[in-house]
Amino acid sequence: FASHGGSIKATLFPGDGIGPEIAESVKQIFDAVQVQVEWDIHFVGKTVDPKTGSFITWDSMESVRQCGIGLKGPMATPIGKGHKSLNLTLRKELGLYANVRPCLSIPGYKTRYDNVDLVTIRENTEGEYSGLEHQVVKGVVESLKIITRTASKRVAEYAFHYAKLHGRKRVSAIHKANIMKKTDGLFLQCCREVAEKYPDLVYEEVIIDNCCMMLVKNPGLFDVLCMPNLYGDIISDLCAGLIGGLGLTPSGNIGDNGLALMEAVHGTAPDIAGKNLANPTAILLSSVMMLQHLKMTEPADMIHKSILKTIAEGKYRTGDLGGSATCTDYTKALIDNLGK
Amino acid sequence: FASHGGSIKATLFPGDGIGPEIAESVKQIFDAVQVQVEWDIHFVGKTVDPKTGSFITWDSMESVRQCGIGLKGPMATPIGKGHKSLNLTLRKELGLYANVRPCLSIPGYKTRYDNVDLVTIRENTEGEYSGLEHQVVKGVVESLKIITRTASKRVAEYAFHYAKLHGRKRVSAIHKANIMKKTDGLFLQCCREVAEKYPDLVYEEVIIDNCCMMLVKNPGLFDVLCMPNLYGDIISDLCAGLIGGLGLTPSGNIGDNGLALMEAVHGTAPDIAGKNLANPTAILLSSVMMLQHLKMTEPADMIHKSILKTIAEGKYRTGDLGGSATCTDYTKALIDNLGK
Ligand SMILES: CC(C)[C@H](C(=O)O)[C@@H](O)C(=O)O
Ligand SMILES: CC(C)[C@H](C(=O)O)[C@@H](O)C(=O)O
Repeated sequence: FASHGGSIKATLFPGDGIGPEIAESVKQIFDAVQVQVEWDIHFVGKTVDPKTGSFITWDSMESVRQCGIGLKGPMATPIGKGHKSLNLTLRKELGLYANVRPCLSIPGYKTRYDNVDLVTIRENTEGEYSGLEHQVVKGVVESLKIITRTASKRVAEYAFHYAKLHGRKRVSAIHKANIMKKTDGLFLQCCREVAEKYPDLVYEEVIIDNCCMMLVKNPGLFDVLCMPNLYGDIISDLCAGLIGGLGLTPSGNIGDNGLALMEAVHGTAPDIAGKNLANPTAILLSSVMMLQHLKMTEPADMIHKSILKTIAEGKYRTGDLGGSATCTDYTKALIDNLGK
Repeated sequence: FASHGGSIKATLFPGDGIGPEIAESVKQIFDAVQVQVEWDIHFVGKTVDPKTGSFITWDSMESVRQCGIGLKGPMATPIGKGHKSLNLTLRKELGLYANVRPCLSIPGYKTRYDNVDLVTIRENTEGEYSGLEHQVVKGVVESLKIITRTASKRVAEYAFHYAKLHGRKRVSAIHKANIMKKTDGLFLQCCREVAEKYPDLVYEEVIIDNCCMMLVKNPGLFDVLCMPNLYGDIISDLCAGLIGGLGLTPSGNIGDNGLALMEAVHGTAPDIAGKNLANPTAILLSSVMMLQHLKMTEPADMIHKSILKTIAEGKYRTGDLGGSATCTDYTKALIDNLGK
């Protein structure tokens, strides 16, 4: 990782809507725990960069490549014909092939589910997200789902590596290979090959519809879930729902050589933008993932514990969690609870 | 519908595993409420019928076509190369284009969710289930998702028709058109066109990942959900999970001219087959749908109420619901509770 006079350099995309406010919260907390991160801040442009063909400039992509690490708020894709999602462009262009979403109950914030502790690991570059679609004849359109051995193998490798590193016990490959025998079949084949190298981890294969039913009945049956792109999109949101929503779940996008871009995956919430009402928890938890990824375990733990403690105490919760704290109130409370 | 000396003729596929036991329960209850149904019973063959290229014989398909109505237990697709799912073969060959799964909490059988009352309506013939897959080059496979205007329009028509007929208020079209702009986009376009003809019903469009998150947080937000094949497969199982599982949810497959095949969509449960331990609730609720479809509202209501009452009382529950009643005990209790 790019270090700069002792400190670490990281790209920061504050993003749109509530993005800048919640990014500010991260900066304040990092200052408070004295994490030496020099932020290379990039706003997504309002015009298309001719070099990338996207609203994301070449410069900002280069920044992530050079820093090796980044943090990202929500981005609104400009409406209009043919604009690809900025979130997806970043994932694809930077080769961020694995999307990791830990989903952990926040004690004290009550949902229907206690003690949820799951991680979804999603193939992040292909599958149903190929963008290959066309009209065959009038009234008949098709879209191509692409599954490759390379992408399936590397996400499976990452899932097992992650499971082992984090002391997890079980990896479930999620699929619909009873119907998509060749595409999902290849994905499963790759998972099986990797599973053989990890005899200490339980490996199982679960059909996606059954998986969703089991998740809502008993999420404790699962541990690490590894799956193709769209299933990961669906199941990670389902899991987030179990613990309260996307406002409480971090996310990381992982590429080669440790390249990583963590992100808050909730929306830009334009209705409350600029009003100091946003909940910065998802980007804060993502910044915790970033610190863990950088092996800065101590500040990561400090911030994480403070978030859990502050939400559990219940005094300073933002509106989405039923409280009336502003984003800055909550951030202050987090800082007060650091190390407690 | 084929009537036969005053009674109605219906095809019955008892199916495999626990299928025959739970089908027996239906027969006994129909006798008890004196529904005049003459069952044309078909077992799926153990050999491939040259006329259909499937384990399902031409005769049995003809039976459904002629009766216009049928009921089906679970079927195990013989393992081995190239055998298509028997369940899917029936849906496809009979042109059963809409799959309807009402999902209703059973008061007294406690899950994390109360008062769930949803209906998923799933396109049942195309989409990700096209069966069109191939290897492009070694290590690269693709599968085709096909969306047609014809199939999307007819399932949308059915969904709105159903919603109106059953006094429902809202139809949500579920999609991922932010990614699959052309395929899911066409599906949405068709839903919108139909929605215009039903100004009294609220119409909305919900992205599938968000839908799953909202379903686990607050299923009361939804009413009738209409969607392409795979999303329907996933979401109907998720919804079933909310109220206890596939053992408690009925399902119907609807085709042209009122052709309908109701089915229990749980598995064949080979481990308990033949032991009188199976829970016949899903096939019984499917038989209630069948009677409703035939406009035999009175016996439908009687059976439905008896199921709810018997499960709520809790004395005669089968093992999957935490009780120790046999299938015949439970069936007897249902008969005792008829009309009470
Ligand atoms: C915004 C959207 C394109 C994106 C996706 O589908 O991947 C989002 O749902 C996510 O999960 O990060
Ligand atoms: C058995 C399987 C092929 C089937 C499907 O995928 O449609 C099942 O999951 C269902 O929902 O009826």
